[in-house]
Amino acid sequence: MTIQVLGYAAHNETSALVPYKFERRNAREDDVVIQVEYCGVCHSDLHMARNDWGFTRYPVVPGHEIVGRVTEIGTKVKKYQVGDLVGIGCMVDSCRACSACHAGLEQYCEEGNTQTYGSVDRHDQRTTYGGYSKTIICSEDFVVKVPENLDTKAIPPILCAGITTWSPLRHWNIGKGSKVAVVGLGGLGHMAIKLANALGAEVTLFTRSANKEQDAKLLGAHHVVLSTDELQMKSVGNQFDLIIDTVPYNHDLKPYIPTLALSGTIVLVGYLGEISANSVPMIMGRRSIAGSVIGGIKETQELLDFCGEHNIVSEVEMIDMQNINEAYERMLKSDVKYRFVIDMQSLRKEI
Amino acid sequence: MTIQVLGYAAHNETSALVPYKFERRNAREDDVVIQVEYCGVCHSDLHMARNDWGFTRYPVVPGHEIVGRVTEIGTKVKKYQVGDLVGIGCMVDSCRACSACHAGLEQYCEEGNTQTYGSVDRHDQRTTYGGYSKTIICSEDFVVKVPENLDTKAIPPILCAGITTWSPLRHWNIGKGSKVAVVGLGGLGHMAIKLANALGAEVTLFTRSANKEQDAKLLGAHHVVLSTDELQMKSVGNQFDLIIDTVPYNHDLKPYIPTLALSGTIVLVGYLGEISANSVPMIMGRRSIAGSVIGGIKETQELLDFCGEHNIVSEVEMIDMQNINEAYERMLKSDVKYRFVIDMQSLRKEI
Ligand SMILES: [Zn+2]
Ligand SMILES: [Zn+2]
Ligand SMILES: [Zn+2]
Ligand SMILES: [Zn+2]
Repeated sequence: MTIQVLGYAAHNETSALVPYKFERRNAREDDVVIQVEYCGVCHSDLHMARNDWGFTRYPVVPGHEIVGRVTEIGTKVKKYQVGDLVGIGCMVDSCRACSACHAGLEQYCEEGNTQTYGSVDRHDQRTTYGGYSKTIICSEDFVVKVPENLDTKAIPPILCAGITTWSPLRHWNIGKGSKVAVVGLGGLGHMAIKLANALGAEVTLFTRSANKEQDAKLLGAHHVVLSTDELQMKSVGNQFDLIIDTVPYNHDLKPYIPTLALSGTIVLVGYLGEISANSVPMIMGRRSIAGSVIGGIKETQELLDFCGEHNIVSEVEMIDMQNINEAYERMLKSDVKYRFVIDMQSLRKEI
Repeated sequence: MTIQVLGYAAHNETSALVPYKFERRNAREDDVVIQVEYCGVCHSDLHMARNDWGFTRYPVVPGHEIVGRVTEIGTKVKKYQVGDLVGIGCMVDSCRACSACHAGLEQYCEEGNTQTYGSVDRHDQRTTYGGYSKTIICSEDFVVKVPENLDTKAIPPILCAGITTWSPLRHWNIGKGSKVAVVGLGGLGHMAIKLANALGAEVTLFTRSANKEQDAKLLGAHHVVLSTDELQMKSVGNQFDLIIDTVPYNHDLKPYIPTLALSGTIVLVGYLGEISANSVPMIMGRRSIAGSVIGGIKETQELLDFCGEHNIVSEVEMIDMQNINEAYERMLKSDVKYRFVIDMQSLRKEI
């Protein structure tokens, strides 16, 4: 038994995204059925639509920054009721049995987690389809509760860009008295600044563009350092407990290492590929280079609760579903402050 | 006022070490005068004697793994008495005021610590001379108490090779239930195995030489993995909380990263220079690459106390001071198990 859903899909690596009717499973006993209200547009969506990583299964319905209302619940669902405002991020399932899963770190599931789109469901082997669609169905264990007091349409990016920076902030115990730097001011970077600031840290943005200073300070950065300016870089030596590096392409890490405090860490959250560094400043300051990917379900819920308490949402530019291809082109030029969010009302006009 | 001391020095980068008479300060009020009984031979000694790092000040009297007896104390010395068995490691002073010094991490002193040899004393601007000498003089704050129940001549390497591996073991909270791997079985590696084992960890040696298995197991390794064997490397994926990499030359880190457990760290303690890695396995397992150098005075004392309780000493080959040049040549060929120690009695024959 399945239900028919309308979404937007790419059918091959060069095609535009177009309306696509597909089937979703009927709700299983632990499932929540969600009418998607808003869906953020992540760089991964574009990479997957265009097969940039070489493992896309077509057709692909992207979207993993999903906020909507519960319209139906499975017979054994306990946490949610019809009408609840909820979210889904990058994962919809995992093995639920390994030590990572038991630790609430499903993103590091030893068997690999089930991604919100483009994965294979562990139970029925159907392809998963994402949030560029009217409806999505997901086990309640991978659904999070969304605070009602925030601007709903600005919440979706918290579920990927937000949690990707929150998880390292929490893992490396950032709080009052910490000094945090953020490399890059995009979807991830702007959330990193807001969250580090709200946690009580002193926040510095590293950027290559002098014109980002005002925006960064409005978002909560206390300082802005031009990473291309050697004198400015020297002036912030031995400072940062944590640097969150959001840059998605290959870039030189060497200038950042000496700006870490004793025992400090630079954590890569945006770039997949070869890195190089010099061990001398690492050894002479017990400094680390680390990586981190998204966050677990429990810490995603913790983040949403934190955002509710601290009145934090993303900076977003709203688009209609029909404008997704244009939005991708603008995203490639970094022409967005700071995240596109699709108003899924626009899809309901289509049949 | 100074005293005359006999030691062994290199006078330029190509000369052998030869007997050398030099002056040391008279004891300051916080100083301890120590008759050197045993001095370990560290690779750094050779590098400094030969100016391999380009900053040697000649003449240089090497030696920073020093064990001896107190023969005299300054008027304000509180911790030591004449006759005490004591040690000096790599440092004889630091600023004592920065946050690293206050944290007992003098090795990371923000002003740079004063090295046991080849540094400039912070108070009288005299060059520091090391343990290849009959007598050494040092502030009591940089002297550690040596347990009397151990084989004294096998203690010196604990003060450099030992603390260099102990500090990361403690910083990364290794204990019962931890899995630790050690890369390389030399002076550092053999101490890392002994200490990790004594802390209760399950210990694996990564080596490129199949013939090291028996020795490694005698030292306390539970497993030995040939790092050149891809199948063996695959069989230890996702395991280690900490890898202590003691290899002193440029080598490929990539095979080791996937053997780290979730949130695990590979810490470089032996190699100064360029490193490369791939961020994918780091990001997908929140893994880190870190560096660490020696250890603080407080943790050096903690280590010596631990060695006293657990009956741990180094494996050493004793030499006379007069054979130091031959020992350097053998050390270059890794022809030592696992550390040369100079019996300073041999120097007392010389005038
Ligand atoms: Zn994303
Ligand atoms: Zn799992
Ligand atoms: Zn040494
Ligand atoms: Zn200091």
